[in-house]
Amino acid sequence: MVTEYVKAIPAKAEDFSEWYTAVCLRAELADYSPIRGMMVVRPYGWAIWEGIQGWLDPRLKATGHVNAAFPVLMPESLLQLEAQHVKGFAPQVAWVTQGGDEPLAERLAVRPTSEAIMMPMYAKWVQSYRDLPVLIVQWNSVVRWEKSTRLFLRTTEFFWHEGHTAHRTEEEAVGECRAILELYRELLESVLAIPVLAGRKPPSERFAGADDTYTLEALMPDSQAIQAGTTHYLGQNFGKAFQVKFLDQDNQEKYVWTTSWAVSTRLIGALVMAHGDDRGLVLPPAIAPHQVVIVPIQRKAGGADAAGVGEAAAALAKQLGTRFRVMVDDREHYTPGWKFNEWEMRGVPIRLEIGPREVAKGEVVLVRRTGGDKEAVPMERLTERLALALDEVQADLHERGRRFLNEHITAASSVEEIGALIADRRGFVRVGWCESQECEDQIRERTGASPRLIPLDDRPEGACVVCGRPSRATVYYARAY
Amino acid sequence: MVTEYVKAIPAKAEDFSEWYTAVCLRAELADYSPIRGMMVVRPYGWAIWEGIQGWLDPRLKATGHVNAAFPVLMPESLLQLEAQHVKGFAPQVAWVTQGGDEPLAERLAVRPTSEAIMMPMYAKWVQSYRDLPVLIVQWNSVVRWEKSTRLFLRTTEFFWHEGHTAHRTEEEAVGECRAILELYRELLESVLAIPVLAGRKPPSERFAGADDTYTLEALMPDSQAIQAGTTHYLGQNFGKAFQVKFLDQDNQEKYVWTTSWAVSTRLIGALVMAHGDDRGLVLPPAIAPHQVVIVPIQRKAGGADAAGVGEAAAALAKQLGTRFRVMVDDREHYTPGWKFNEWEMRGVPIRLEIGPREVAKGEVVLVRRTGGDKEAVPMERLTERLALALDEVQADLHERGRRFLNEHITAASSVEEIGALIADRRGFVRVGWCESQECEDQIRERTGASPRLIPLDDRPEGACVVCGRPSRATVYYARAY
Repeated sequence: MVTEYVKAIPAKAEDFSEWYTAVCLRAELADYSPIRGMMVVRPYGWAIWEGIQGWLDPRLKATGHVNAAFPVLMPESLLQLEAQHVKGFAPQVAWVTQGGDEPLAERLAVRPTSEAIMMPMYAKWVQSYRDLPVLIVQWNSVVRWEKSTRLFLRTTEFFWHEGHTAHRTEEEAVGECRAILELYRELLESVLAIPVLAGRKPPSERFAGADDTYTLEALMPDSQAIQAGTTHYLGQNFGKAFQVKFLDQDNQEKYVWTTSWAVSTRLIGALVMAHGDDRGLVLPPAIAPHQVVIVPIQRKAGGADAAGVGEAAAALAKQLGTRFRVMVDDREHYTPGWKFNEWEMRGVPIRLEIGPREVAKGEVVLVRRTGGDKEAVPMERLTERLALALDEVQADLHERGRRFLNEHITAASSVEEIGALIADRRGFVRVGWCESQECEDQIRERTGASPRLIPLDDRPEGACVVCGRPSRATVYYARAY
Repeated sequence: MVTEYVKAIPAKAEDFSEWYTAVCLRAELADYSPIRGMMVVRPYGWAIWEGIQGWLDPRLKATGHVNAAFPVLMPESLLQLEAQHVKGFAPQVAWVTQGGDEPLAERLAVRPTSEAIMMPMYAKWVQSYRDLPVLIVQWNSVVRWEKSTRLFLRTTEFFWHEGHTAHRTEEEAVGECRAILELYRELLESVLAIPVLAGRKPPSERFAGADDTYTLEALMPDSQAIQAGTTHYLGQNFGKAFQVKFLDQDNQEKYVWTTSWAVSTRLIGALVMAHGDDRGLVLPPAIAPHQVVIVPIQRKAGGADAAGVGEAAAALAKQLGTRFRVMVDDREHYTPGWKFNEWEMRGVPIRLEIGPREVAKGEVVLVRRTGGDKEAVPMERLTERLALALDEVQADLHERGRRFLNEHITAASSVEEIGALIADRRGFVRVGWCESQECEDQIRERTGASPRLIPLDDRPEGACVVCGRPSRATVYYARAY
């Protein structure tokens, strides 16, 4: 009988970084692999990723996107075709130089992103305007050689989906970027309960080879921003570099306009940071692998079940299972108290306790992971009450996040003020910018913050915070993951 | 307006190999990538793979299996820990020797299979009998450097799921292998409509590191066998090599018993070969991405739709879509005849034609991909008729396959007879075997066939076909993919 629960999670407020790693490990979301910087996503973490897939995939399919699979390796020569692209990725590539017993004539990159292997195929497949748009998505992993890594947030291999689309017109390609960004925003806000700011990246922060990068940025409790999803408008850069051409209805040969976009397992890191507390993980019901855990409370653990508690718990699970994601923890080797700690640490939104007294009275005790009183709920009202409680937890987490984000956006009118606000962990700092690289570099150097986004509906006003010339864009600065 | 349909598929009976490749390419299941031996699985092919995933994944989960993700790269030293395993895989490994700008101290294998990266984690996670069984599955791809390749059947990269389980007892591990084999058999027979023989491999054909390999073998129309799914009983080989130990209930420290198993995108190749014909692909309804294609027949393509044909087709698709996987081909640029050819080539089981006459009479014309008369079906009976027709096509394909398999198993009583039967494309040849490697090698050398399986319920009788000593196993020989 295991009675003592060893938590070993430091307080979130004391050492945020240690707390984060401890929660990822102890909640069994991920683990370190034998390869430096590469993580293992454990079943509980992967179930969260499957929840994200299960939400996104049908929505992408409903809008005409299809899945496919392209090789994990790509020749160096293809990676070099788009000049900006290779510049951005080459320093981070893992290179295969030997296949079986043979040294390779040309080294192959382990997929860092798939533009360079997909575009040559698009060039082959696209002949006519009738073949457009091409709307292909891959769910896979990519490898980028990182010097310093953290579970989910920055790892040498990470898991993602990557969408790569080719269009007949510029408008359609830009529209695709905006539509996917909106889909990602809905995922973040309504499923993961993480409020975000949406915007465009300044040129220095764009994807390598993009004409425009759209981004969602969330703010973590340590006041650092995290990029939570991006869509890239690639113009005709890749169309030209890879000769993806089509005969248009007007009989002219034209280059396609392309986009690429992604969200990754990094979202799981954001989820941990955004909602977790000193007892461990807190999962929004919309994404929790188990929304409800039922803990039967026997008079004596492992002993006789005179009151029919086990049976009642199983019947309850069966009944609720048609509507909610439910699990019963009927393990005999652990005490109820141990199980309470365990499932709180693993972030299950609702716990139901059922013991002899509850069986006798025809009720169960409902406990919310996010706090509040224990509540005795009569069996006949349970489904209804549970649905409501889950909605409340979901809304509560989102609301807390929204309040935190709103309270952490401040305007600044000098570089010194930016620096002070950043040092004071005040989150996003909003400033006017003349769009010169020199002014941006000054802010970066003097504050340690980077430009996170320019709002989608930006109406710049006032002066550049550095040089005083008229502002041409409003920029949100923050320290970032 | 595109009217001329260019098929360019050779006759199946004339050049099976050319026919196969042409169908894979023309039906847009797969394409050659710029990397030798690596294929691109195109959206239509991937949709079939998703159908296989969609059938297997919930069934694996219902039996306690969970998904996870382990690194795509693994250190050479780990691959070497299990002696037979490294011997089997090392010659086929793609090696990463450079990460970003740094040459690596130890080269890393691109995943050829994941035992060597998963077992060190199991060693860390498993302490007590309470931690067992571990039942983890990955859906990913593996790379094995192949000298000669064919789309789906043998490619340098292929897609699969790999299950890796660790158990407390030998019996449980063997039971897992048998249960998964049975699951695979159901997939093959009732979803893919491909009849199989189930059995064990002789030692020479086992997975590198296994004590026993269970296999499903199907017979293709060219009389060559194809391995369609395998489960491996690994005994304590990997438990000992990777020190995966647990404290049992009796307080003894013991090594775990492990299994691994997989089916791969090779199944798509088997599907093409098993059912296709001179007009292209034929897909069993249970796996077809589109079970039904609706082709509206306008009086004049692209012209006015006075009879309301387009509207009727859309309404029909909506109605049938709640029960079947339906698509409407309402493209204006192609004639109905072109579409008929196209969807037959892509193997859609049922076509529904609807023109002004059908709209007027309140019926549609139903055409089966597997042949038989065109059938006018009144609207009110359509759902029922369609369900039946799909069942008929599914059953018909399976029945054809069953008959073909049964007619292609012959007993032989001499090596000469084996050779003659194999040369005559008679499929599986059944013989008695004394279990000596010498006798097996003689058959291989003199007939070009390999031993495919020993039946699960084998009752050997008679004499070894080579040496005349008493038979200790019945072996099925065939040429194989």
